[in-house]
Formats: sequence, C-alpha cells, structure tokens
Amino acid sequence: MIVTLTATAPQSTVITILAAAAAAGCEARTFSSHQGGIIVGVAGSVPVADLPGVQTVLEKHRPYMLASRESHQIPSTVVVGDVPIGAGRPVFIAGPCVVESRESLLEAARAMKAAGADLLRGGAFKPRSSPYSFQGLGEEGLRYLSDARELTGLPVVTEVMEPDQVDLVAHYADMLQVGTRNMANFPLLRRVGQIDKPVLLKRGFSATIEEWLMSAEYILAQGNPNVVLCERGIRAFDTSTRFTLDLTAVPLIKELSHLPIIVDPSHGTGRRSLVARMALAGLAAGADGVIVEAHPDPDRAMCDSTQTITPPELATIVDSGLKLHAVLNADPFESAIDAHPLILAMQA
Amino acid sequence: MIVTLTATAPQSTVITILAAAAAAGCEARTFSSHQGGIIVGVAGSVPVADLPGVQTVLEKHRPYMLASRESHQIPSTVVVGDVPIGAGRPVFIAGPCVVESRESLLEAARAMKAAGADLLRGGAFKPRSSPYSFQGLGEEGLRYLSDARELTGLPVVTEVMEPDQVDLVAHYADMLQVGTRNMANFPLLRRVGQIDKPVLLKRGFSATIEEWLMSAEYILAQGNPNVVLCERGIRAFDTSTRFTLDLTAVPLIKELSHLPIIVDPSHGTGRRSLVARMALAGLAAGADGVIVEAHPDPDRAMCDSTQTITPPELATIVDSGLKLHAVLNADPFESAIDAHPLILAMQA
Amino acid sequence: MIVTLTATAPQSTVITILAAAAAAGCEARTFSSHQGGIIVGVAGSVPVADLPGVQTVLEKHRPYMLASRESHQIPSTVVVGDVPIGAGRPVFIAGPCVVESRESLLEAARAMKAAGADLLRGGAFKPRSSPYSFQGLGEEGLRYLSDARELTGLPVVTEVMEPDQVDLVAHYADMLQVGTRNMANFPLLRRVGQIDKPVLLKRGFSATIEEWLMSAEYILAQGNPNVVLCERGIRAFDTSTRFTLDLTAVPLIKELSHLPIIVDPSHGTGRRSLVARMALAGLAAGADGVIVEAHPDPDRAMCDSTQTITPPELATIVDSGLKLHAVLNADPFESAIDAHPLILAMQA
Amino acid sequence: MIVTLTATAPQSTVITILAAAAAAGCEARTFSSHQGGIIVGVAGSVPVADLPGVQTVLEKHRPYMLASRESHQIPSTVVVGDVPIGAGRPVFIAGPCVVESRESLLEAARAMKAAGADLLRGGAFKPRSSPYSFQGLGEEGLRYLSDARELTGLPVVTEVMEPDQVDLVAHYADMLQVGTRNMANFPLLRRVGQIDKPVLLKRGFSATIEEWLMSAEYILAQGNPNVVLCERGIRAFDTSTRFTLDLTAVPLIKELSHLPIIVDPSHGTGRRSLVARMALAGLAAGADGVIVEAHPDPDRAMCDSTQTITPPELATIVDSGLKLHAVLNADPFESAIDAHPLILAMQA
Repeated sequence: MIVTLTATAPQSTVITILAAAAAAGCEARTFSSHQGGIIVGVAGSVPVADLPGVQTVLEKHRPYMLASRESHQIPSTVVVGDVPIGAGRPVFIAGPCVVESRESLLEAARAMKAAGADLLRGGAFKPRSSPYSFQGLGEEGLRYLSDARELTGLPVVTEVMEPDQVDLVAHYADMLQVGTRNMANFPLLRRVGQIDKPVLLKRGFSATIEEWLMSAEYILAQGNPNVVLCERGIRAFDTSTRFTLDLTAVPLIKELSHLPIIVDPSHGTGRRSLVARMALAGLAAGADGVIVEAHPDPDRAMCDSTQTITPPELATIVDSGLKLHAVLNADPFESAIDAHPLILAMQA
Repeated sequence: MIVTLTATAPQSTVITILAAAAAAGCEARTFSSHQGGIIVGVAGSVPVADLPGVQTVLEKHRPYMLASRESHQIPSTVVVGDVPIGAGRPVFIAGPCVVESRESLLEAARAMKAAGADLLRGGAFKPRSSPYSFQGLGEEGLRYLSDARELTGLPVVTEVMEPDQVDLVAHYADMLQVGTRNMANFPLLRRVGQIDKPVLLKRGFSATIEEWLMSAEYILAQGNPNVVLCERGIRAFDTSTRFTLDLTAVPLIKELSHLPIIVDPSHGTGRRSLVARMALAGLAAGADGVIVEAHPDPDRAMCDSTQTITPPELATIVDSGLKLHAVLNADPFESAIDAHPLILAMQA
Repeated sequence: MIVTLTATAPQSTVITILAAAAAAGCEARTFSSHQGGIIVGVAGSVPVADLPGVQTVLEKHRPYMLASRESHQIPSTVVVGDVPIGAGRPVFIAGPCVVESRESLLEAARAMKAAGADLLRGGAFKPRSSPYSFQGLGEEGLRYLSDARELTGLPVVTEVMEPDQVDLVAHYADMLQVGTRNMANFPLLRRVGQIDKPVLLKRGFSATIEEWLMSAEYILAQGNPNVVLCERGIRAFDTSTRFTLDLTAVPLIKELSHLPIIVDPSHGTGRRSLVARMALAGLAAGADGVIVEAHPDPDRAMCDSTQTITPPELATIVDSGLKLHAVLNADPFESAIDAHPLILAMQA
Repeated sequence: MIVTLTATAPQSTVITILAAAAAAGCEARTFSSHQGGIIVGVAGSVPVADLPGVQTVLEKHRPYMLASRESHQIPSTVVVGDVPIGAGRPVFIAGPCVVESRESLLEAARAMKAAGADLLRGGAFKPRSSPYSFQGLGEEGLRYLSDARELTGLPVVTEVMEPDQVDLVAHYADMLQVGTRNMANFPLLRRVGQIDKPVLLKRGFSATIEEWLMSAEYILAQGNPNVVLCERGIRAFDTSTRFTLDLTAVPLIKELSHLPIIVDPSHGTGRRSLVARMALAGLAAGADGVIVEAHPDPDRAMCDSTQTITPPELATIVDSGLKLHAVLNADPFESAIDAHPLILAMQA
C-alpha cells in the first residue's frame, strides 16, 4: 500500500505505520512527496484509516511502488555531474566501447565533446562472453576516464560488474552502469542502491518491462533515487540485426514510471548504418536521451567496431535530435499526444 | 545473376540470355532499368560475357533480386489512386479495423479526411482467430469502401485473404493488403502479382527480413512492381504490448530494398496511448508513411478498440509527422545520415 | 455455452436451442456425446434451463469448444486409411520431403515400409520461401503417391496449400496436411473442414497453443472431426537448431484437447543427428506418433537433406519407440502420471 | 589452438608452448588427455610444428575449447558427494524451492530419499524479482541443508548468487548452483572456477547454446573441471507455460561438449501436471538426470507451488525414468542412434 501524508501530518503517524508494518512482517519505506509531505510505502497492508494526517491511501498498485507513477506522478530528473537527464532537452552520451589506452581515450573524449556529447561513456570493466577476450583495463581504465573528464568537463559513465567493485567505480565515475547481463544481479542492484551516484540500468535483453522496473525498485528501495533506464534491444528471432530495439518501451515506461529513459541504438542494432536513424526514432518515441558507441576511427576500435559511429555521425545525430525535439515540443503537441497515458496505464 | 544491358543493346542479346536460362532450367525475368536499358534477372548463371550490349553482370546477389537495391538502386514510388508512397512526403492511412455498416464507414471516412488522412483503410474480409467471430461484411463491405472513396476522394486499401477473392477485391479497392498471417501464403502472393493494383504486404509477425523480401519477390516476379511493405510488429516474449514494433526494420529495408515501407503502430503496440509516439518514431526511422486504426468513437468499434485512436489524435499525428519530416529533411541531414547504407549492406 | 442433452431428450429441445441461438446471432453446432446424447455448442449464451432433457450446461469454457476436453473428455482416435492415430500404439509417418520422381518415390516407399513406417509422407505441392525454388510436381506427384500406396499398402499424407486444391489432393491422399505457414489460413481451414478425409494440422511456428486449437476449431466447426495436431518446432532466438521443438506442447495439448498429437523432429531440429533422440523424447512426452523426413539417400534428397534420416535410422526409431511405449504403459504408470491434468487445466 | 602431446613428450615442449603463448599475449592452459599425455590449449596460435612430442594440432576449433568434445572426446563424469553424474544411470535431484525451516526441510529430505532421489536441492539464497519477496534464510538455510544431508545421506545442491558467498556456500554444500539469471555473471563464474566443489550451471533463459558453453568455459578455465549443465527452459512467445523447455539442447550439447547435462522440467514448464512427462522426455532425449521441485505438501510451499510435485509423483518419475533408461540402453540402440554426432557437429 502507498500512504500519502499531508505536509502537516504528525510524526507519530509515520512511526505508527512503520511499527504496524514491522509487526506484520512487511517491508516499509518512507520518502518525500512532491507536495512537501511524506509518503509511506508498505509491501503489504496495515490499518491506517484512523491516523491523523493521512491524505490518500492506495491499496492496489503495481509491484514496483517506488518506481511507479502511481506514487510519483511527476517525471523525475536525474543529474549526472551537472547534466540533468529527464528535464526536457535530450542528452547525448557517447564514447568508445572500451577504454583502450589513456591517449586514445583522451582523443576520443575531445572528439565526443566537439561533436556535442553531454556525457562520456567507456568500459573499464567489460563483460565478455569468452574468458579469453580482453576484459578491460580495470582501475587503470577508471583513472583514464577521470582524466578525460578533467580534460573535457564531460561527466563519465562506466559499467560496474560486481558488488565489490561498486565503491571503486563510484570513486572515479559520475554514473554507474549496470549492464544488460546484470539487470537481475540482485546483490549488485542492492549495492548500487547504497551509493550516492546515479545509476544507468540497462534492460536485460530478455527482461519484460515489469521485471526491468522491479530491478529499478531494488535500487530505489535501498535509498538511491537516481536511476535512469536504458532500452538497448531485446533478443528476438531475426538475426539480421544484433538485437531488436524495442522502442515501444519508451512511451510505455513513460506511462508506468517516473524514471527517465534513454535509448542505446548501438547495441540495439549492431550495425553502424542503422544507428543514426534509430537514435532519432528513439527521441521521437519520447526518450530523454541516447547513448551511442563512437570512436575517432571505428574500424580500429578494439571491440564492437561494426556498430561504432564516427564523431561527424554523432554531430549529425545531436544536431538532428535537437531539431526534432524542438519541433515536437514547440506547441501543445506533447500534451495532445501524451495526455491520457496514466489513466490508460492504470486501467490496464 | 543480374545482367544490365546498355540502352542500345540488340534484342538478340535478351533473347539469347532467356534461351540459355530456359535451357539450363532457370527462371528468368526482364525489366527496365532506370538508365533506359533492360535488366535480365536469371535465377542461376548462364554465359553472357561475349554478348553485345552487356553493361554489367552481377553474379552474386541477394536471393530477392527484383526487390533488392542491387538491381534497382533508386528508391521506388508506388502510386495508389493519386497518392504517391515513397516520394518524400509521408503518407497517412487511417480508418476503422472493420467496415461495420455503410453509415458508420462514411462517417469515419469523412472524419479521416478531415483529420488529414491520405488513404482510407477498412476490413471487408477479416481474418479472425475464432471461427465464431465476425468475419466481415464481404463484398457488401467492399461496396461501402467504394462509396466512401466517392464521397471523400480518398483511395481505399483493404485486405484480401485468398486467391479466389483477388479479382473481386481488386475491382473495388485501390490497393490490396496481404495480411500478416498470409505473408507466406504463396498462392495468394502469386495471384496478387498478376493484377495491376498496388499491394500492401504486411510483415509476417514471425518473419525475418529476408523472408519478407522473398515474399515481395513472389509478387514482383509475377510482374506487379507496385509493392509497399508494412512493418506491423513481431511476436516477442513480452506481453505488455500486443506485438513488438520492430522499427529497425525501416532503415534496414531501406538499405536492402528499393520498395517503400510504412509502419503500423496500431497492431504493433495494441495500446491506444502508444500509437502516436510510435507513429512519429516510425517516421523518424525513415518510414514513408503510417497506417493506423482510427474510429470516430473507438470504444464502440467492433474490433481492436483498445488500439484504435480518435480523429483528433490522428490530426495530431499528421501535423507532428509532417513537421518532423520537414525538419529532418530541411538540410543535408538525410545524406549525412543515410550516406553509405548501400555499401554497408552489400558488405554484410 | 456447451449444453449436453440426455439420450432421451426430445428433438424439440435441440430445435429450440438452435432457434434461440439464431435469434441471438450466435453460431451453434450439434454433435454426438460419448454417452449417446446430443451436445449443442453455442458461441454465446441462450436460455435453456427450462427445456426438457438438458443434462448439463457449461456456460464458461475455452474458446475452442469443439476441440476442448471440456466438451469431449475421452481422447479421440483418428483413422487414416486403416491406421488409427491416438489409439495407444504410436504411429510412425515417414518419407521424403518432396516427391522427386515416380521411381525414387516407389523406392523410398518400399524402404519406409521395410523400416516399419505406418504411413507415407511426401510433398507434391511445396511451399517454398523463394519463387525461384522447385515448387513440387503437383498432380503428377499426387499420382505417384497413389501408386506408392498401391505398391506398399501405406496410406499417404501430403500437403495442400490453397482452397482450390483441396478436392484434388483429397482425391489422391488419405490425409491432408495443412502446413505451418497455413495454420492461420482460415479459408483453407474452412475448406478442409468440408471434406471427409483426416487433416494433419501443423502448428504455426509462432502460434500459441490457443491459436493452434482455434485453428483446429475452424476445421471441426465445418463438420470434419478428424484432426490430428502436429508439433513441429517454434521460432526462437537460438539459431543453432532450425526451430525449437516445443515438446511441452504434447502433454499440454493432452490436457486441453481430445485431439491426437504427433511430433515432427525433422523440421523441429533441422539436423539429422538430433532427429532420433527428439523422436523418442516426443513419444516419452506422450505423443501419439512421429513424422520424419527419411530418404534412401539423404544427401541426394532434393530438399531438406540436412534433416533427412536413412531407413536404418528410421528402423531404430520405430524399434526403440515401440519399446519405450511398452515400458511406459506396462503398469499403472500412465494414470499415476497423467491423473489430474484435466482438473488443473480447468483451473488455469 | 589445441595441441595434444604424446605420453612421452618432454616437459620442455610444454614450457616452450606456454612461453610462446605468453609472448604472443594469448592465454594458455594445460590439462591431461585421456590417453595419458598432456593437452595444451592456447587462445590463439603459436608455432609448435617442430617441437618434440607433438601428437596432433587443432588450429580451428570451437571457442569453448575446454568444454568442447574436440579436446575431450569421452563424456565426462562429475561426482557429487558419492553420486556420479554422467556415468550412465540417470540421477534424480529433488527438493523444495526454498529452505523454509529446519523441520520442514528434514521432513522433505526424508520424503525425497524415500521416493528415490539421489541428491537434495533447496534454496538458501534466493534470487527474487521483487525486493520485497522473501530472499531465503541465508547461512541458516545452509546449515539446515547440511543437517538434512547428515540425516539422509543425500548430497546437497544449492544456489550461490555472488562471488563473496562462494566460500560460505562451498563450506556447506556438495554442489553449487549458478542460476539462470547469473549464467553470464562472469565474476561469479570465475570465482566458482576456483573451488574444488562441482558446479551446476543453469542455462540463461535467453542464452544460446554457444553462450552457455562459453560460460562453462569460464569455470573450466579457472581450473574446476566439474561442471554439470542444466537445461531449464528458455523464454519464448507463448505464455501458456512459464518457459519453453528446449529439450533439443540435450542431444545438441552431447554432440558439442563432454560435460554432463540434466533437465529441470519444473521451471521449464511451471505447471505441476506437466513435470512428469517432461522429465521422462528429457531422459529419452539423452539427459544424465533431472532436477525437480518437490515438497511433501506443494500447495503449502512458500514459493513455486504451482510447479512443485509430491513425493509419490517423484517416485513415479524415478521408477519410470529408470525403466526408460534401461530399455533405451539394453541393446545396441545407443550406438545406432548417436553414432555420428561428433562428425556432424564438426561439419556444422
């Protein structure tokens, strides 16, 4: 149940609800509402009707109560470094698949900055299907990312693969990425829920929308509200693309959740020639940004070269993406198009 | 093999190639090239090197030689009634799932026209999973569609389900739709390949891109060049939407084929609130148009009401879609983004 | 609704129900119950409570009322030629993918017979993805199949692809196959529902269990009760096999329907070395038989050679399959294992 | 490359190859061949032709060289406690989804033993989609499993979810399970590769066969040869079962790898009434055993009750499974059926 209290509700009400939840063996969380009051989420149901200061009680709601729009109707903004994600203007995250060397990373970072990127991406710890493949530079790669931020001012996002690495990665990075293979790595989710850095949660390539939001809930339930979702393609039957980019996830997540969502057309397609079009399609679908693999010389990139674009291609995406965003938001279009999603979602 | 002849090649060359193909037991087709010459496609290989007037010989090519960009590098335009599809400006096709009655169809047609639709859709023969469901009005429905065209001037597109219906449907409609369940109904494909009306070929919801283009090839090989493809969602594991709209198919088809492609976000999502965003995403992906289910009063539509939009919603899509198209084509963007697809495709 | 009448119910009751259904615009069917009475199925609900001779009324049931076990609790047996399918002993159907010539077919038929096959399969009309591939010998192939039956005594099963071919194929064949690509070809289903030959209905490779049973319902609703289902693999993400044989469909169909079901491990795997094991697995799952592609010289088969087995391999499958069946049915095992499926199914 | 040395090869040859690999930046491993010599696997290629004692050199092989049959043609046996898996007689692993209490676990263990189980399963650390669901008793649960082993003599298998838990779980359990959601958790795979307890590696529900074997390779490459694979169902489009049990994986894995493989029909179907049939089908497909969820009173099980069977149902599976195994192995059937898989696999 989700109990919203008035701004003037006595603290005893909060304490009574939490105690009743504990007695009933249900987990409970408190968080601040947008109207200045407190919201208490209980994984179960306890009697609250007679308590002072109770404004609304939602007994039936989605299982991901913290991630849902039911408890949090205004879309959230997550700030990475000084870059807001979810605040309107789309955000462009770009960089090489893997940090290869200090020099090449700094060169790439400068090129991304010049092409209009807002954040820099790059892998220091890489999940690889083969134990014999290059697994990343590790902490050395993190230091180079930190250097690249210093050089360009771009906040950096990089992947973390296990609970024990979380503090290390959080020390260097501005945003921690949980990769598609780890979306249901619950110990890792809990651990990134305990830090004060934003988390980029990629969708598991076979995860349903609900499973994905439940994974976000793991992070939120530990107290870290700064979660950005990333659609990166699901596994389907057609192998003419590496994955199938499920752009419908974008407006659907917007209905179901207040969390920002971005799109990864690089992994989603696996083909360089499709990246630009699918980046724009993602923005037209309502995404808050895109993340792409870009490299000054894609054909010489250490991994994922077939899906990596050049800095000029990135510049074209940024330019067209901003124009597209402007035209779709220049008039009352947004409201006309997205007017009733919440209502429909709750009927579903 | 695909043999392109010069504009001045002697007819004997064509005859020699066709005879050699017949002798070798390979099917062969001739068609006109964009440079004024003739192209001969042979499903196999015959000796042509010494013949006069041979300009180029492509021994290795994709299995769908007529549908491929290799044989036909300039995108095709298909004209339905007087509406060109694939000529730049996106086309909007809208109407009810099924023709319910004359009166309701005429009302719907007027509403579609007013909202900016270019073509009217509506089902007279309906494929239904249950033998007990309403199967459409049949020829009566076709007559009402014809009346609606007379009233509004909108060309009409409607589904044909079996070879024996083709002539009947072609008598009334401006474009014949082959539905997702019939994409691999080869006798039907052959039959619609023998008429002179354009065909809207929906992707089978489990068809690969290659299988889809092979089905187009069935139609083209019978002599009907007027095929428009329609991405309408594939079947995947997540049931939070009815199907998974595979928008990546749009730029991929543009690489592989010269045929126009449109997008159906109604069946692709199954949820009214997602249709507008996914229509715009489809256009941003490069689609030549969209087809949507729309009804003056969706909640009272006889079928598919949960995915049917209202005329005002359609008007918003048309308006935003045209703006989006304009901004993405106002500058050298197109060429920058889509510059090398063909090259990449042929390397793949 | 499904209304079961007593054996002594007056005919007026039947007439009244049918008239009420017609008045309400609902389709209705009558068929014989296993207890000697009549069952009336109505696609909707009409008042029957006060009519004489009404034994039971089932208001809520699955959408495929004729195919369901709810209306028909005893498993059905379908007799092809003189071979019963569903009567206990598993049935082995084998033969080449396509009828290549009279001579080769007769040789294959003799080899199948010698290896223990009960029915002969072979394609005269072949659905091919490419318009340029060999499409079968047509009626000539049907005649050869007929000759092969005369020679060996094996009843023959062959595919029919369009409504107009149904009478022709039924003239020569003992059982008509509706292929995976035509499972939702509703005009074809209706047409094979009007003949008096058994139908082998392959599962669409992306069809749900319910869609498959609804397609069977189309045939049953036309009056042809002799439908055998065939699981032949679904399309999934892993391309290391051609399709993914969904053997769980076997016990699930047994719960939901009274219709016999067989398994096709040739198309289901696409690899010769996997066919024998998956045939046995299908029988262990409870299938009433298997259908395999076999050829005296698989490497020289005109199509599907990589999944075609030899006559000795077929003999091994028949031998092991019969032993497996015997041991799994030698004791009260069957009842212990399959005791409560119906109950569970109806709770689902 | 895979270099097999003769039994009398000098140690200098091994050292030279390892040094050459190190110099080339390729990982290398040594392991014992079945013929008494040493095999050196190199993730790359180095010159070996002139070294003394080189018997065979395989330059091209599958990426999972340690898991493949190419390097290890005789099927492996993995011994858990005193129970061999892969040695012929199928193995039955059973127990509750989750350890609920000491008392209930001991009762369940006694019931499993009496019904014929060879190993006991039960979850102490549970991966749950919701952060609000019961996550298992943790170490307390491990102690109860240890008590159950003492009581019944059954070795125990239980899941480990993160690298830091590996030593703890290995202290109590006889076999560590890596669950479907962790199949691509590479840090966890590396960590269980460093212990001396066997590992049960479940297939990721969207993993290809190759990805699965690559995950096994992660464990093997760390020095732990005792890996058993478990097919537990893949995610497909039909929701009438929880997952789609991909039994074809069984004979396919037997072709590609020497590792034992078992089948989990509980998670694979999600429905109690289907478990027995699919367990038998798995054994007929060639699996070395089955793992099922069983509970003295399934309807009161804390989780997965709809897919949990009773002890009598387990006894029926054990009894029928052993009979089925006996009949399929009583004669030269095995060789007839599985004669040429390796050859075919290597052609593929």
